[in-house]
Amino acid sequence: MQHYFLKQPAQLGASVDLNSDISRHWVKVMRATPGDHAEFVDLNGNLFLGQLQTSTDEKTTVKLVENLDSKSEIPVNVTLIMGLPKQDKADWIVQKTTEMGVSEVIFFAADWSVAQWKGNRIDKKLERLQKIAAGAAEQSHRLKIPTIKYEKSLENIVTSFSGRLLVAYEEAAKQGEKSELRHQLGEVNSGDNLAVVVGPEGGISPAEIQLLENNNGIKVGLGPRILRTETAPLYFLAAVSTIIELNS
Amino acid sequence: MQHYFLKQPAQLGASVDLNSDISRHWVKVMRATPGDHAEFVDLNGNLFLGQLQTSTDEKTTVKLVENLDSKSEIPVNVTLIMGLPKQDKADWIVQKTTEMGVSEVIFFAADWSVAQWKGNRIDKKLERLQKIAAGAAEQSHRLKIPTIKYEKSLENIVTSFSGRLLVAYEEAAKQGEKSELRHQLGEVNSGDNLAVVVGPEGGISPAEIQLLENNNGIKVGLGPRILRTETAPLYFLAAVSTIIELNS
Repeated sequence: MQHYFLKQPAQLGASVDLNSDISRHWVKVMRATPGDHAEFVDLNGNLFLGQLQTSTDEKTTVKLVENLDSKSEIPVNVTLIMGLPKQDKADWIVQKTTEMGVSEVIFFAADWSVAQWKGNRIDKKLERLQKIAAGAAEQSHRLKIPTIKYEKSLENIVTSFSGRLLVAYEEAAKQGEKSELRHQLGEVNSGDNLAVVVGPEGGISPAEIQLLENNNGIKVGLGPRILRTETAPLYFLAAVSTIIELNS
Repeated sequence: MQHYFLKQPAQLGASVDLNSDISRHWVKVMRATPGDHAEFVDLNGNLFLGQLQTSTDEKTTVKLVENLDSKSEIPVNVTLIMGLPKQDKADWIVQKTTEMGVSEVIFFAADWSVAQWKGNRIDKKLERLQKIAAGAAEQSHRLKIPTIKYEKSLENIVTSFSGRLLVAYEEAAKQGEKSELRHQLGEVNSGDNLAVVVGPEGGISPAEIQLLENNNGIKVGLGPRILRTETAPLYFLAAVSTIIELNS
C-alpha cells in the first residue's frame, strides 16, 4: 500500500485535499480510483488509512477512515553527524539511513573532508537531500521525515547537542575493541537522544577526536572490519535497531 | 596500511614475488619503496606483515616478516541468497556485503525479478562482481574474498545448502514481528553455516516462500521498517555482527 506524508495535522473522519505531488503519484502514476486506500501520515506523525473519494484535474480528496497503529519509528532519536563525503555519497547516505530509521542527518565540513560545500549551493543541496529523505521515508513507511542539515563547525554541533554522543572510530576496529557499542546501546532508554559521529573518507582528525572527547563523546567500534565512510552509518543504525527494536 | 591477497599459500620468513596487479598498486600507485610494509593474506587465510625487498619493472619481492593476528572474519559462514535486483544494484550489494563480512553471495533468478541475466553474459558479470568483492575485501581488511555465484533455480540452492536458512520477509515487518531474527542469531555457533534469502524489488513469491518453508527456511523480520531490496542484506549482516561479534 502507498504511504504519503500530509503537510498538515489531521483527524479521523476528515476529508483532506491532497497536494499535487501526492495526487499526481497516487492517481496518475499508481492509477488509484475512488474507493482505493493508501496510508497517510499527518504532520503530528499520526497514521491513517485513507480512502480516495474524488479526483479531478483540479482536486483530489481523500477521507481518513481509520486510525492505524505503527511501530515503524525507532523509539530513540538518532542523529547522524556525518563528515562530508565525496561525490554523490551524501545522497545515498541520506536514502539508506532514512530507511534504517535515522531522525536527523547533519553533514559537517570535517578537517579531512575532500569534498566541500560552497555557501551559495548549500541550500540547493539540502533541498535535494530533504527530497530524497522524504521519498525514502514514504518507501519505508515511516512516520517521520528525517531533517537534513549542514554545519561547518563540528564544535557548534556537539556543543548544542544534548544526549548520548558516540564516535565511530576506525582505530577501535583495528585494535579489536568489540564491546563498547553494544554496551552503550544497552543503556539507551526510550525517548533518548543518541548521536553518532562518522568521519569522511580520510577519517576523523586528532583535533576532532579531542573536541569530541571534551564534549563527552565515547569512541565505539563498529565490528572488526574497516568500513567505508558510507557503510559505517548503516552498520550503526542496524545495530541500534537490532539492540533496541528486536526483542529477544 | 595496505592489505593484499596472495594467490598462493605462504609461510613466515618466505620471500614472495608479487603479481603485477599488487605490484602496480603498491609500488606505482601507493609509491611503496624498499623497507615499507603492507599486510598480505595467503590462500589459506593467514595474515602476514610483509616488507618490500626489491622492485624492478620485472619483479617485486616481499618478505613475510611477521605473523599477524586478525579477527576480521565473522565466526560463522554467512551466505546471502539474493533475488536478482535491477540495474547496477548487484555491484553495490556485493561491495557492501563484502565489507560487512559475507562469505558467499548467490544471485538467483527470482519469480518476481525484473532483471534477467542471459546465458552468454553470466560469466562476465560474475567475473566483474568477483573483482568488486576482492577490492572490498582488501579495503575492509578481510582474510577471505567472498565467492559470488549465480544460480537460476532457488530450489537447487536451498536443497544443496546445509545450515540455518533464514528468509527476510517483508510481511513480517508489516505484521510487527520483532523477535525471530534475534532469537535465531542467538542460536548460531562458531563455524555454523547461516544463509539468508532476500527477495528482489517485487518481493518473494508465494511459491518461493512455500519452497523455502519446505526446506526448513525460517521467516524473520528485519525491524519494523520496509527496507529496499539492496538495504535488507546490509541490515541482516550488521545484525549478525552486532549479535555475534560485539560482546556486551
